[in-house]
Amino acid sequence: MANPTAAMLVIGDEILSGRTRDANMHFLAQELTKHGIDLKEVRIVSDDAPAIEAAVKALSDAYDNVFTSGGIGPTHDDITADCIARAFDTPIDVRDDARALLQAHYDKSGLELNAARLRMARIPDGATLIENPVSTAPGFTLANVHVMAGVPSVFQAMVASVLPTLTGGRPLLSQTLRVDRGEGDIAANLAALAEDFSDLSIGCYPFQINGAFGANVVVRGTDGGRIDAATTRLAKELEL
Amino acid sequence: MANPTAAMLVIGDEILSGRTRDANMHFLAQELTKHGIDLKEVRIVSDDAPAIEAAVKALSDAYDNVFTSGGIGPTHDDITADCIARAFDTPIDVRDDARALLQAHYDKSGLELNAARLRMARIPDGATLIENPVSTAPGFTLANVHVMAGVPSVFQAMVASVLPTLTGGRPLLSQTLRVDRGEGDIAANLAALAEDFSDLSIGCYPFQINGAFGANVVVRGTDGGRIDAATTRLAKELEL
Repeated sequence: MANPTAAMLVIGDEILSGRTRDANMHFLAQELTKHGIDLKEVRIVSDDAPAIEAAVKALSDAYDNVFTSGGIGPTHDDITADCIARAFDTPIDVRDDARALLQAHYDKSGLELNAARLRMARIPDGATLIENPVSTAPGFTLANVHVMAGVPSVFQAMVASVLPTLTGGRPLLSQTLRVDRGEGDIAANLAALAEDFSDLSIGCYPFQINGAFGANVVVRGTDGGRIDAATTRLAKELEL
Repeated sequence: MANPTAAMLVIGDEILSGRTRDANMHFLAQELTKHGIDLKEVRIVSDDAPAIEAAVKALSDAYDNVFTSGGIGPTHDDITADCIARAFDTPIDVRDDARALLQAHYDKSGLELNAARLRMARIPDGATLIENPVSTAPGFTLANVHVMAGVPSVFQAMVASVLPTLTGGRPLLSQTLRVDRGEGDIAANLAALAEDFSDLSIGCYPFQINGAFGANVVVRGTDGGRIDAATTRLAKELEL
């Protein structure tokens, strides 16, 4: 059986303007690979309601799971929760359980749960909260969309809260063969290998060290025996 | 007049599996910002022909420029050029000028221009070559799509070849104000500021240092005077 699929939607002008280098995508990609969920597509859009809504709809329709990052804080540019609600045509309002979490958190830290902070308790009807052990304000899951914070430490904690609740598949395994030749010299071998092992993904990533060309051949799949067989055959053909 | 828009399409299983952390997006975002082209959307898809074709079509229709990265080398998983040709319903074959570039390069390095390497001279009809001073094999521009290599040093060289040929706009400027308060405390000020300066983009990026909350407020736009005015007003309101 094929593994479940996933897409990620990163929301944030700061990534698209080059101010910030995204870290969440790389983290999520690694976690999903371990969990046996195939990340098929990532989109990054700006803090623009129509763009967010259209992307959420398209990805939610096309994949088993969608993970979003960014735009759920207390400021005016945090519009993700409202966009998700509109994408699913669902009402959204401050929810008592989310408000209680925030109230307890701000009481403890001596800060006021003002109108801006209360926006973080706006949760679409029917959503399940995602625990945030770092800074309390929760994420949420609505249908197959998991809505999480953009701050990397919070994003990572939320992924850790969500992943165990999802059906995983067989973890993606890989073996890497380093070949000290230009990839043009081994391309024919790789093409034949890819044809005979069509259940595996065979990638070739060139590098250059001190003027000499080489390539890392990465064989990926869920069946360790097949990966072994493919890697062994290639090593033999290339006399490694 | 509004700045020209752009999207980026990153092609590569190695990014989606978490093996490699993409570097090209962050580089391109910064270069476009300097050049006055607004990067509006990024998509990352796997080495899958239908996914690449669909993304190229969607982005080419929606934005002034599309930049792709990855999948133009000599191996079986390098399918980008053929996908672009299909997306534009254009024939593709080995082209004499691209072949001559490769022939001269491999003659010099004493390597054979074999069938695999010759695939890098496959260029869709009507495309313009993009110079590659790093490793010779060219990229190309077809319609509004600029097709470039995934290896970061080559990608960066190709961006340097292409950018001067594109109509830029006014560079995006920004000022950052560091505020040592939680963003929930300044959210009301920011919302009012964003309303009064609707020609600017005002972002708020929280941080936490030694348990204390703070936020960087980033004011972006193309008019330096307006950015100054907005930043000055906020600093005054917050008594910074």
